[in-house]
This record gives sequence, structure tokens and C-alpha cells, in this order.
Amino acid sequence: MKYLQGQPHALPGHGQRLAGYEARHFLFAIEAGVATLTLNRPERKNPLTFDSYAELRDLFRALATTDDVKAIVIAGAGENFCSGGDVHEIIGPLTQLDMPGLLTFTRMTGDVVKAIRACPQPIVAAIDGICAGAGAMLALASDIRFGTERSKTAFLFTRVGLAGCDMGACALLPRVIGQGRAAELLYTGRSMSGAEGERWGFLNSLHAPEAVLAAAQAFAADLARGPTFAHGMTKKMLQQEWNMGVDEAIEAEAQAQAICMATNDFHRAYHAFVAKQKPAFEGD
Amino acid sequence: MKYLQGQPHALPGHGQRLAGYEARHFLFAIEAGVATLTLNRPERKNPLTFDSYAELRDLFRALATTDDVKAIVIAGAGENFCSGGDVHEIIGPLTQLDMPGLLTFTRMTGDVVKAIRACPQPIVAAIDGICAGAGAMLALASDIRFGTERSKTAFLFTRVGLAGCDMGACALLPRVIGQGRAAELLYTGRSMSGAEGERWGFLNSLHAPEAVLAAAQAFAADLARGPTFAHGMTKKMLQQEWNMGVDEAIEAEAQAQAICMATNDFHRAYHAFVAKQKPAFEGD
Amino acid sequence: MKYLQGQPHALPGHGQRLAGYEARHFLFAIEAGVATLTLNRPERKNPLTFDSYAELRDLFRALATTDDVKAIVIAGAGENFCSGGDVHEIIGPLTQLDMPGLLTFTRMTGDVVKAIRACPQPIVAAIDGICAGAGAMLALASDIRFGTERSKTAFLFTRVGLAGCDMGACALLPRVIGQGRAAELLYTGRSMSGAEGERWGFLNSLHAPEAVLAAAQAFAADLARGPTFAHGMTKKMLQQEWNMGVDEAIEAEAQAQAICMATNDFHRAYHAFVAKQKPAFEGD
Repeated sequence: MKYLQGQPHALPGHGQRLAGYEARHFLFAIEAGVATLTLNRPERKNPLTFDSYAELRDLFRALATTDDVKAIVIAGAGENFCSGGDVHEIIGPLTQLDMPGLLTFTRMTGDVVKAIRACPQPIVAAIDGICAGAGAMLALASDIRFGTERSKTAFLFTRVGLAGCDMGACALLPRVIGQGRAAELLYTGRSMSGAEGERWGFLNSLHAPEAVLAAAQAFAADLARGPTFAHGMTKKMLQQEWNMGVDEAIEAEAQAQAICMATNDFHRAYHAFVAKQKPAFEGD
Repeated sequence: MKYLQGQPHALPGHGQRLAGYEARHFLFAIEAGVATLTLNRPERKNPLTFDSYAELRDLFRALATTDDVKAIVIAGAGENFCSGGDVHEIIGPLTQLDMPGLLTFTRMTGDVVKAIRACPQPIVAAIDGICAGAGAMLALASDIRFGTERSKTAFLFTRVGLAGCDMGACALLPRVIGQGRAAELLYTGRSMSGAEGERWGFLNSLHAPEAVLAAAQAFAADLARGPTFAHGMTKKMLQQEWNMGVDEAIEAEAQAQAICMATNDFHRAYHAFVAKQKPAFEGD
Repeated sequence: MKYLQGQPHALPGHGQRLAGYEARHFLFAIEAGVATLTLNRPERKNPLTFDSYAELRDLFRALATTDDVKAIVIAGAGENFCSGGDVHEIIGPLTQLDMPGLLTFTRMTGDVVKAIRACPQPIVAAIDGICAGAGAMLALASDIRFGTERSKTAFLFTRVGLAGCDMGACALLPRVIGQGRAAELLYTGRSMSGAEGERWGFLNSLHAPEAVLAAAQAFAADLARGPTFAHGMTKKMLQQEWNMGVDEAIEAEAQAQAICMATNDFHRAYHAFVAKQKPAFEGD
């Protein structure tokens, strides 16, 4: 059975390329289908600002229609991941905003997480040092998290008088580390150590500080060489089935997997197996 | 930007105080905003009765409109937490009830958990010794659980011929310790040891038996000194987002956090930070 | 209070017996209320075929109305659990199917999981050696999983160019081992070792290879001697409350447990307790 062939995703508004994209608020580089996004204000432990939130949101939205990025690594420069919203550049101005202004801000930060979850590329966070506040949310919104013994992840919204419900934390964190541990971190804002993170399932693995970025990139490169259309479907369904009943999720997967069985990558895998070769996936 | 000022929660039906409340079926004391509720029939390992269920339900409902309690500790007297529904005082009479009577009972016990989850105060359970049946559910309904090596938590409904679905166990336990471990405990009624409880995320930490109550109270006191309005929002959203989709949860948090950004505690935190001081939160 | 007595489940279409059932694609034997289903093509590590999927689906559907099976063990012959869909007998033919044919297949495999979750008997998987693809899903769809140090569980759909969303994996696996660990296994298809499986909550316990089947059967026999009507309700509610809100789940449990309080097993347990005897449950 052969399916419709053609230019992959040859629809208007699709197939754009991000090679050469010049990021304004972080470093951005693509190699072998893996985009590495590096928060880069190391002297301040890589805080976020209004403008960097907006650029992150726009970039992850653009990734949904981008062809030359198959997996993403998020990292921080200078031995820290991200210190979160800058107190002077974010918290101060927020105290001056009226309610519509506040909601515009919280929706913008939430939109960053929505865009991270909506783009089809799997995302690997490489977490060393401080990973705090909105930075912890960037890590939590990623699919895979690599850390170090010395990484410290803190959902510290409570420390500035706010609630633990920020950018989806009360929904996402309990599903990753369990409801009881999530409650403790969200109520107290205390740091989760690297060892705790690995033990609780927040971190997929621990690495030496000098090796964590390369490990994340190697992992992402493996995914980028895989059946990337199918990976995008895995990511979509992990999101889509979040609050479905079991039977509804099974039907949803029957449909989603039938779509994947109509891709060329599925056929490539079968023919490679018969020929006792390793399949060369092309993502269509 | 300044927000409306006024008497905090100065609405009819709000702002009541529980200082001086004389509990009939347990001990109740408030210190520095922390209410400690101690089940106190140690010679029977602190069982529950129809009347104590009803008083627990009413007390936790009252806490929703109470101002002088900011965090709660639940404990048991005499080296045990709670042995659950008393066989003679509960199980026996239940065998005499018709169906409307049975449903009245199961709804009453469920209402205890609903009230525990609905009051805005974070709840810390201090668990030593036996923690069984409905007692295990009081622990599970709490936000945070401190235990001891010798604590034994058993969802032992099956031992009296009943199902594991009691007071919300089939919903809550899988989210705390995972679906597979929850299934084992609910089908068999076997005890979870203190070490297992900590390893699986049921217990947030283990303490010496003589220290577990004080540790829970110290933890609760820290929360009581924090931004308590925001803590109440954290608790509300952990409940509210239970079965939302990810995107809907993110929007819900954008709204909830915008509300918290309009509190005085958020401003206090910012000004304290700028002044290099520790913020003094007041819960408004 | 006495409830209506009568032939248990004496409704048309109920009360069938599976003793003597001659399975075509696996071994099937009942002893003391425990049915052991053994995948039995050990020379190929017990793969599944179109026909064995269909028989599994039909058998688990029949179990919903079967009286002489109270608990189920799923195992594999010859030191492996199941290698999943056979490449030659499944993958090859799938590459020849049109879209309606593909959906018919994915719905059939999903129906196996639906039937496993819908029958009232608790299911214990005894997992040694290879547990891969659709085999991993049979394990995941079980209630309890016993494993060995050398068991290797892999959701390896990605290796044949497909997505991780197969037979409910994206819904079930995150609830068992957490969202982060599930994402890694589903994106990469890598094996989860026995030690990881136990640590992460996928495996309830580890056993020696020569002992794992007997341990699973002994566990299942304990459940078969228990209040089996109530066990069926536990299983039903673990499914039913999957995506309910907390309050709705508590009401659902109030109703479900009131039903169980109207069973004879509840009365038997009470009277045995009063007589200081061990209850003899009969499942009605």
C-alpha cells in the first residue's frame, strides 16, 4: 500500500527554516537537526525578562512550522540554568500594573509553556546550578531533563508572596514527581537537589557538570535521527490524553498510531528489518 | 498601582475565629496560627466514630471561613495516628443500615475529605504508628505527610470485605505514589512501611517518633508565616486543575496568579527584597 | 438489615464458566479461582499475532461475565514474557493495509487493553526476560506487575518508526512511573531494567526468575480468596475516576462503597471479627 507522496508538509505557512535565526535574548544554534537554546546572562544566572519571555514564546510557536529543527536542547550559560523572572526587571514593574496588565503578563508566561508543549520537537533541558522560578518551569515544560548533582530546582514563587500555580506548575509537577512531593516544593519554594530530582523522576539522569550539555545534545541528536513525525505524535498525545478517560485515550491512540502506520518511516523500518539493516528515518 | 484596601475578608460569614474552640472528640489547640488537631483515644489507637467524623467535617468546613488558623497539623495521641473506623462503633452499626443509611454514611466520610481539601489552610499530617483505613485517608487527604520508620499506613477496607474506593482513595493514592503501587495497597490492604512511604512519595520525610509532631508543627508554622492568601490559592489550584487539560490549567493559573499579584503580600515581598530585608507577610 | 438474596449474578448472559476453555494461541489453566494465561511460543520469545490479539480480546471480554475465575495471571513461557507484535506476521502485513485496515488493527489491539481493564478480575503480570512492544502494554494494562532483575521492558514502537502512543501507553505509563520517565521510555524505546522498574513503581516487586510465576500466582490466589465483588469494584473505580475531579471521585466512591456495604462479604467480615475468626469471603 502506497500513500500520497509529495513535498513533506508542503502547505502554505509550513516548512520554514530557522537556520540563521539571530536570537536577541539568548544564543541559538542548530546542528544536525538539534537546536540548542542557551540562556546567556551568566553574570545574573540567566534571568528572564519581559522581552526574553516574548521571544521564547514566539520562537517556540515558530518551531511548530519549522522543518530544519527536529529536537531542541535548552541550557544556561556559566554553570546555571536560569534564575527565573528578574526581580528588578520583572517583579518591580509588575507591582505597578493594573489587573488587565497583570493578566497580560501571566498569560504571556503561560503562553511560553503552551508553545513549548505544542511544538512537535522533543525538548531536552540540560540543568546545572540554579534552576528557579520561571526557569524551573522551562525545565518542567521540557520533555526530558538531564541534571547534575549540584543542580538546584526551586519553584520559589511563594518566596515573593505568590502562589505555586504559575505557568502550569500545579498541573505539571504532580504528574512528574507525585502529588505529595509537588505540594511540598510548591508551598515552600525549597530547592530540590540533583539527587532528589533523579530519585523522584524530575531528572531523567545525572551527569557531570562539564558533560551535561553534551549528553543532552547527544540524546536530542538520537531523537532527531529517529522517526520525527512519530515523535511529534508521541508528544502530541502525551498532551492530548492528559485528562482523557482510559478508553477514550485508547481510541485516540488507535487513530494516532494508524496515522503513523501510513508514514514512509514505518515502511522504511520494516524494509530495513527484513534486510537486516538499521533504518534511516526521514521524518515523513 | 494600589488595590482596594479594607478589612481583610470583611464579608458577612467570614473572619470567624476558632481560638477557644472546645472540641468534643479530639484535642484542638492553636498556637501562632497553627491549629493542632490530635485524635485522642490512645488506648484504642485513636479510632473514628460517627460523631467524630461529623465533628471533623464540621470543623474543616468552619476552617474555610476562619481567620486565626493559617495552617493545620493532624496527629494522633500515644504513638499511633489513627486506627480508622471503629469496628464496634462503626462497622457493626453499618451492617444494620438500609441503603439510604449506608449512602448517608459514605457521603459523610467523603465530606470529611472534601472539607479537608476545600479549606484554604495547608494541612500537615504527623504520622507515627498505626495509620489505617479512614485514618490513612485523613493522612492522604492532607497536603504534606511526615512519618516515622515505624509508621504503618494501610488502606485496609478490603479486610472488612469492602472495596478500596473509600473517601477518594482510588483518585488520590495513585497521584501520590503511582498507579501500580496504589493498586497493590488498595487490593491487598497491606501496610506500607515508613521507609516505603518515604521512598514512594507518600511521606515527605521521616522523623524520630518523639520528633515527628514538633517537625510537622515547625513546618506548618513556616507556612503560617508565609503568604497565606497565596498558599490558599496553591491549595485551591492543586485541586482545581486535577482533571483539566494542560492548556486549560495554564490559563487557570494565569488568572489565579494575577489575583495573587494584586495582593499586598506580593508588594511586601518586592519592597523587602529591594531593601535587602526578609519580607513580613500578612496574608492579605 | 438483610439484602436481597439469590443466585449470584443470576442474570441471562452471566455466570458462565471458563474451566475447560481450550485456548488456541496460548496456554490457559484455572486453579483455585486463578486463571493463568501463558504466552507460549518460547522459541520466538512469545510474540503476538493477529489471531492471538483477537483471542486475547475475546477471552478478556468473556471474563467480564465469568464466575469461576476470580483473579488472573499473565505470564510467558521460556524465560521471556512477550516480544510484542511479530515483525513478519504483523509489521509486514500492516505495510500492505489501507487506512481503514490500519485503524481496524490499532482498534483491535486497543480493545485488548480495554477488555483487560474492563473485566472485574485483578490481573497480575509475571514478567521475566523480554517484555516488549505490545507485550509491555499487556504488562502495563495489568493491575500488578511482578518482575525479575533480568526483565527488560521496552515500549519500542519508535524503533519501527511509530509513535509511543500505542494501546494507551501515553495515558497509562505516566500514571505508573511519572511523566518524565514515561516520556524517556516512549521517545527512545529503550529497555527499563528490573531494578529501574521496581524503583520507579512499574514493578511491584522483584523475584528470582524461577520464583516469579509462583509468586504472582500466590498473590492472585490471595485476591481470589478475598472479597472478589469488592475487588471488582476497586478495579472499576481505579478506571472510572481516572479523569474525574476530586469531589466527583469522592461522591462516586460514596456510592460504590455503599453498594459494597450491602454485600454479604461485608457482613461476613464483621461477624468473623466479632467471633475472632478469619472471614471466609464468598464474593457476593
